[in-house]
Amino acid sequence: MTLHDAAYRDHACLIVHGPDQAGLVAAVTALITRNKANIVTLDQYSDNPEGGAFFQRVVFHRPELAAALPEIEHDLAQTLEPYSMQWTLSDMSVPKRMAILASTSDHCLLELLWRQRRGELNVTIPMVISNHTNTAEDVRSFGVPFFHVPSQGADKSAAETEIVRMLAGNVDFVVLARYMQILSDDFLTAVGVPVINIHHSFLPAFVGAGPYKKAKERGVKLIGATSHYVTKDLDEGPIIEQDVARVDHSMSAVDLQARGAYVERAVLARAVQWHAEDRVIRHGNQTIVFE
Amino acid sequence: MTLHDAAYRDHACLIVHGPDQAGLVAAVTALITRNKANIVTLDQYSDNPEGGAFFQRVVFHRPELAAALPEIEHDLAQTLEPYSMQWTLSDMSVPKRMAILASTSDHCLLELLWRQRRGELNVTIPMVISNHTNTAEDVRSFGVPFFHVPSQGADKSAAETEIVRMLAGNVDFVVLARYMQILSDDFLTAVGVPVINIHHSFLPAFVGAGPYKKAKERGVKLIGATSHYVTKDLDEGPIIEQDVARVDHSMSAVDLQARGAYVERAVLARAVQWHAEDRVIRHGNQTIVFE
Amino acid sequence: MTLHDAAYRDHACLIVHGPDQAGLVAAVTALITRNKANIVTLDQYSDNPEGGAFFQRVVFHRPELAAALPEIEHDLAQTLEPYSMQWTLSDMSVPKRMAILASTSDHCLLELLWRQRRGELNVTIPMVISNHTNTAEDVRSFGVPFFHVPSQGADKSAAETEIVRMLAGNVDFVVLARYMQILSDDFLTAVGVPVINIHHSFLPAFVGAGPYKKAKERGVKLIGATSHYVTKDLDEGPIIEQDVARVDHSMSAVDLQARGAYVERAVLARAVQWHAEDRVIRHGNQTIVFE
Amino acid sequence: MTLHDAAYRDHACLIVHGPDQAGLVAAVTALITRNKANIVTLDQYSDNPEGGAFFQRVVFHRPELAAALPEIEHDLAQTLEPYSMQWTLSDMSVPKRMAILASTSDHCLLELLWRQRRGELNVTIPMVISNHTNTAEDVRSFGVPFFHVPSQGADKSAAETEIVRMLAGNVDFVVLARYMQILSDDFLTAVGVPVINIHHSFLPAFVGAGPYKKAKERGVKLIGATSHYVTKDLDEGPIIEQDVARVDHSMSAVDLQARGAYVERAVLARAVQWHAEDRVIRHGNQTIVFE
Repeated sequence: MTLHDAAYRDHACLIVHGPDQAGLVAAVTALITRNKANIVTLDQYSDNPEGGAFFQRVVFHRPELAAALPEIEHDLAQTLEPYSMQWTLSDMSVPKRMAILASTSDHCLLELLWRQRRGELNVTIPMVISNHTNTAEDVRSFGVPFFHVPSQGADKSAAETEIVRMLAGNVDFVVLARYMQILSDDFLTAVGVPVINIHHSFLPAFVGAGPYKKAKERGVKLIGATSHYVTKDLDEGPIIEQDVARVDHSMSAVDLQARGAYVERAVLARAVQWHAEDRVIRHGNQTIVFE
Repeated sequence: MTLHDAAYRDHACLIVHGPDQAGLVAAVTALITRNKANIVTLDQYSDNPEGGAFFQRVVFHRPELAAALPEIEHDLAQTLEPYSMQWTLSDMSVPKRMAILASTSDHCLLELLWRQRRGELNVTIPMVISNHTNTAEDVRSFGVPFFHVPSQGADKSAAETEIVRMLAGNVDFVVLARYMQILSDDFLTAVGVPVINIHHSFLPAFVGAGPYKKAKERGVKLIGATSHYVTKDLDEGPIIEQDVARVDHSMSAVDLQARGAYVERAVLARAVQWHAEDRVIRHGNQTIVFE
Repeated sequence: MTLHDAAYRDHACLIVHGPDQAGLVAAVTALITRNKANIVTLDQYSDNPEGGAFFQRVVFHRPELAAALPEIEHDLAQTLEPYSMQWTLSDMSVPKRMAILASTSDHCLLELLWRQRRGELNVTIPMVISNHTNTAEDVRSFGVPFFHVPSQGADKSAAETEIVRMLAGNVDFVVLARYMQILSDDFLTAVGVPVINIHHSFLPAFVGAGPYKKAKERGVKLIGATSHYVTKDLDEGPIIEQDVARVDHSMSAVDLQARGAYVERAVLARAVQWHAEDRVIRHGNQTIVFE
Repeated sequence: MTLHDAAYRDHACLIVHGPDQAGLVAAVTALITRNKANIVTLDQYSDNPEGGAFFQRVVFHRPELAAALPEIEHDLAQTLEPYSMQWTLSDMSVPKRMAILASTSDHCLLELLWRQRRGELNVTIPMVISNHTNTAEDVRSFGVPFFHVPSQGADKSAAETEIVRMLAGNVDFVVLARYMQILSDDFLTAVGVPVINIHHSFLPAFVGAGPYKKAKERGVKLIGATSHYVTKDLDEGPIIEQDVARVDHSMSAVDLQARGAYVERAVLARAVQWHAEDRVIRHGNQTIVFE
């Protein structure tokens, strides 16, 4: 569900996960009630009723939320301590700060800028960084700063260092909007926030470069796109969202690419929206998505 | 999610709805905990955070459920009394009893029989009643009794009376699997259990008879099917599920009907599954569906 | 299939329709061969093999097409004369000129501008006309002229007259990209070129104003959009394309509108692309679409 | 488009493929005209306008087709000889004979039997062969002979030899409806007719055994099914049709399998229908599908 700005005022999102235990839901809901908040939505999932992992997302409304947050956090720490649960509590009226890394392709980049402007993504966009300059004017027309960091041949460490320096402290997550440089493990460690990628195939099919060409060669009847968290293993990170489009024998690899662009931008936009609204919980190499 | 037989043992489904109030979720979850049960899934929805209607579905696991049910029901009655909520509690290991009414078309009928045999519908099927005989052998091959109640011209009251007598006390809900007789208000009142229909169009388009012919004439590019609860207003009852399929100019009304049959059977099967698992709550002329 | 600029050079599109007759396909294909052209794609459809209407679309490649066109047209006129067929022949390297009429909503408008810039719509856009000014800057950033023609209360004839004067001779078709003024019959007659609209519902459901509100009230489980040619009967013109998106009980009418926007822009873009490539033939109140 | 029995009377399907050459379409259409036949549908495709491969499917209506076939074939042989084209001509009123090989799963098997009974597959089914017996009664209830050929441990040659002997001369193609034995190259050579398989994943993802388990482990958000011609390379043959269904984190591998069954039966049924109607042309490891 799309929530608009006003809807986030005095709303908090609580994520709880850890070992499943009896009474956990009751403990959390009682906590919310005694903190004078009202539950708006509550989703939960246990991957195994007998000793599995438990995941919960609660959105609650609390008048004067900002003032009450420290107290609620204190209560949470005490209440959940005996259960050994991990939790995060976020004020939904404070949008996450999202940096976008892009290359020459504009379809994913513009889609995110445009949805953010429409108020459909609960994020701010402090910067777009590209290793090309062709999208500068478009990006700035949205009132978003554009920075050009050219890629620098085989040794990408200088460019990566520059990007890390720009991101540090300024962003809550990074989106690779068809950014065509492979990021090093060092970069991922240094950047220290989640990085979301869009891969132009239905993973795990067609890992790596040139998926549309591979799709044409294999003669598939559907092409796809996959948005996932970036890990050190290329195209292997936890999948957030996927979708497909129908194709046929008459379409060239270039045609597949053109049609696929529309799947890519839709899939990435949904993944970003869900991440921005704390709807995605990583669990090993999988994701729990409370849509 | 598909649940199989064993998954229902000692599982109960609680539906609560009524005026939204602070603390309601906490009260219900605390009740479940103090009755030594563990929450498996919990869905809730409020149509307006300020004084709207509240809907909750909780599936919980309670060892020795059957023995504990009266006590839990007593607790529920006392706990929810101050909130003026309506509630139902059902033992999920007791499948609902579903009667099917059919005519000559077999696609919806066989789909339900076949899914039930696969263990994908949590129902028993005590009887199929048809105003035609062509499906008798197929129905009986599933071990399901088949009864022929011919329609009787303009005055359908005798046939309806006979059907009501057969259903009375034997079924928890009725499915019209392309049953081509319009049921009277008296029938609906007398039968006293929910009646689910499949209409062969994307309602509210093409209400009434001959929707595929109308769809061809209007030149639509998608055809659809709608499953809904039957009310006294033809094709106007609360919608449970809908879906569509792509068609094109080259298809005749007969072609649309052939393609539509596959949408109809899928839509009806999903609606029946959701109803059987207490996932559908009627609210005015709408439904809340906790998929 | 997406065709790119170069693909259109020396390509012509021939549309033939009229009463179905034996030998028609052979006559047309022989004509193409004797004019030293090679058939690239050929689609045909007859709505009734016995005396029905026949529709054919042939794309052929003819080196030095521009020089050869008059001769081919002469041959066509002579060849098809005994068959009483209607035909049009267009040089595909000459894009159709498309005017866009818009109001405050930008999603359909920007989608068309952006797809045209990507080379995915075989059109030029000589002007955007809006009764509001909010999209002026965005439109002009695509290098497209923007004209503001305010709507003028109950009597729209002055505004319509102004628009007709601007369009006259300058455009081959007009697209209403969520243009929120109802056009008069006089306008349609005066403008003299096809007008394509996007309606924000799955027609014929929810004709007229406020379809998302109506959809919410009826409790549908899918929302849709419909692109159609505009005729004097509101929302009744021949449908070019439709699509739907899944929604649920938790979404407000505003949420439906937000989600629907993505269906609208996709449906309108496909309809415009097909029209621009002469893939749509009107036949009574229906369309033949050779995708 | 679904064609029904009567629609096939006096209809022939001509498939032509080989090196693309100017005048080919005109030559074929002129041939049809001079043989007093009328073109019903014509599809063609060239994989490269400059010296590529050409594929054409023409359905034509010729009164007294059976009597005229030898003459038309003679004309075809002479007409196409200078073009070095391959061609096949089939009388559509003679359904292809399809054998089904199955194991314990019944969903694909019953779907094919049921669609054939409805007249939606232009095939006869001379036999079902299974290495299990559980479906015998269901199969025979459709009036189709059921043969049990048990699999025989590591050495499958005896079972394969028996199956080949049963099929020889009796069938035009074979469908593996979730047949869980891997067929040897010798079998494929000996059987000498096309073999169509349904694989329970979106190929090329999850090749080999246990695709739903692999899909669960990878955390994909869509599952799929693929129908393809069987070649000696497992799961690598030319793809005829694919489709997907949405899944989520809450579904176990067993749930994926249950949902996937509905994708499998739909995908296989479409592939079989298209093959039965000569809509699929193999070209290297790809297929041209004239839907």
